[in-house]
Amino acid sequence: MESRASMAPTPGALPYYVAFSQLLGLTVVAMTGAWLGLYRGGIAWESALQFNVHPLCMVIGLVFLQGDALLVYRVFRNEAKRTTKVLHGLLHVFAFIIALVGLVAVFDYHRKNGYADLYSLHSWCGILVFVLYFVQWLVGFSFFLFPGASFSLRSRYRPQHVFFGATIFLLSVGTALLGLKEVLLFKLGTKYSTFEPEGVLANILGLLLAGFGVVVLYVLTRAEWKRPPQAEEQALSMDFKTLTEGDSPGSQ
Amino acid sequence: MESRASMAPTPGALPYYVAFSQLLGLTVVAMTGAWLGLYRGGIAWESALQFNVHPLCMVIGLVFLQGDALLVYRVFRNEAKRTTKVLHGLLHVFAFIIALVGLVAVFDYHRKNGYADLYSLHSWCGILVFVLYFVQWLVGFSFFLFPGASFSLRSRYRPQHVFFGATIFLLSVGTALLGLKEVLLFKLGTKYSTFEPEGVLANILGLLLAGFGVVVLYVLTRAEWKRPPQAEEQALSMDFKTLTEGDSPGSQ
Repeated sequence: MESRASMAPTPGALPYYVAFSQLLGLTVVAMTGAWLGLYRGGIAWESALQFNVHPLCMVIGLVFLQGDALLVYRVFRNEAKRTTKVLHGLLHVFAFIIALVGLVAVFDYHRKNGYADLYSLHSWCGILVFVLYFVQWLVGFSFFLFPGASFSLRSRYRPQHVFFGATIFLLSVGTALLGLKEVLLFKLGTKYSTFEPEGVLANILGLLLAGFGVVVLYVLTRAEWKRPPQAEEQALSMDFKTLTEGDSPGSQ
Repeated sequence: MESRASMAPTPGALPYYVAFSQLLGLTVVAMTGAWLGLYRGGIAWESALQFNVHPLCMVIGLVFLQGDALLVYRVFRNEAKRTTKVLHGLLHVFAFIIALVGLVAVFDYHRKNGYADLYSLHSWCGILVFVLYFVQWLVGFSFFLFPGASFSLRSRYRPQHVFFGATIFLLSVGTALLGLKEVLLFKLGTKYSTFEPEGVLANILGLLLAGFGVVVLYVLTRAEWKRPPQAEEQALSMDFKTLTEGDSPGSQ
C-alpha cells in the first residue's frame, strides 16, 4: 500500500469513470433544460414560468456542481492540497449560490400565487438538505481553510466531513427525484399512466439523476482511487511542523 | 492499525449506533403500519386494501431487513465468518421473499382494477432495484457461499459487493420515498397542502426512512468499525492454504 501510494500514479480506469460521471451529469442538466423547455413552457423570472427556475437551479447547483466538488480530490490527485481545497470550497460556493437562486424562485412563485409553502416531503427534505449543506460548508471552512484548526483536529474531523459530504449529496439527489415526481403527478395527473412522452422523458431523467449519484459515489469510495496521503502531507505546509513530529494523516 | 485489529475489541460507540439504527428501523415499520391502519383502511389480500400490502412489505423487506443484513458484519464482529455470512445471506432471502409478496400484491391489485403497470418513476426504480437485488444475491452467493471461488477472486470481488450492496440499499430507501410521495399525491391531492394529519405523519415517516438509511450507511462505512481482518482470516478455512501463501485480505 505504502509504496503504491508514494508513487501516486493516476489509476488507469479512474479517468474513464470521471469522464462517464461528467457525461451523465451534463446529460442530466441538458435533459432538465429540455424537459422544462419542451413540456413546461421554458424559463422566466417574471411569470408563471418562474417555478421552472427552481428545478434547473437545484439540478445544476445541488446535483451537478455538488457532485463535481466531491470529485475534485480524485481528479486533481497530484495538485497541491491547498489548490484542490480552494477549488473544492469554491465549487460548493457556486453550487450554494445557484441553489439559493432556485430556492428564492420557488418561494417567490408560491408567494405570488398564494400557494402554501413547505407542506410536502420534497420541501421538508429540501430545506433540511439545504441547511445541512450550509452547516457542512461553514464547519468544513473553519476546519480546513481557516488557519486555526490543529492537524489532529483536522484528522479527526476529516472522515466525518467526507461521510456527511457524500450523504448530503445523496440526499440532494433523492430530494431532486421527489421534486421531479411531484411535478409529474401535479402536472400530468392521470395522463402519467398513459406513457405520455413527458412522463417517459422525466422517468429517464430520474434514472439518470440516480445514475449520476451512483457513479460519483463509486469514484469517491473506491479505496485505491483515494488521494495518496503523500501529496496531502506535502501541501499541509502550515501544519508541517506538527506533521513531521506526529503521525502521518494516512495512519489515523 | 494492525495491533488494534488483532485485539478486535468492540468499539465503544458502535452498540449505541446499532441500537439507534434498530430503534429507527422499527419505528419506520411501526409507523408504516400505523399510517396504513389509521388513514388507508388497513391491510387485506382480497379487497381494495390489497394495495396496502405493497408499502408494508417493501418497507419491512427492502428497507428494514435489507439494512439489518448489511449491519450483520458490524454487529457480529467476532463470530465465525461463515456463521455471519450465512446470517447475512438468510436475512437477504427473507427480505427478498417479503419484497416479492409486496410486488405480487401491487401487480395483482393493478390487474384486478385495470390500472396500468410500470409507468411511474417509482415503479421503474423499484423494478430496477429488485432485479439488481436479486442479481447481487446470486453473484454474492456464488462467490462467497458456494465453495468454488478462489480466495483472490473473493478478495477482488468483495469491495464491489460491499459498494453495490450499500448502493442497492440506498436506492431501495429512495424508491420507498418516491412510492410514499406517489400515494400522498394520489390520495390526498390538494389536501396535502393544508397540512392534513396524514400528510404530516407521512412526511415524518419519509424523514425517518431517510434517517434509517443514513445511520445504516454511517455504521457500515466508519473505518474503525469495520470487521477486523483477523476474524475474517480465521474462518476462511477452505482458503487457508492460499491465504497463508499470499497476501492477507486486509492489504488488498
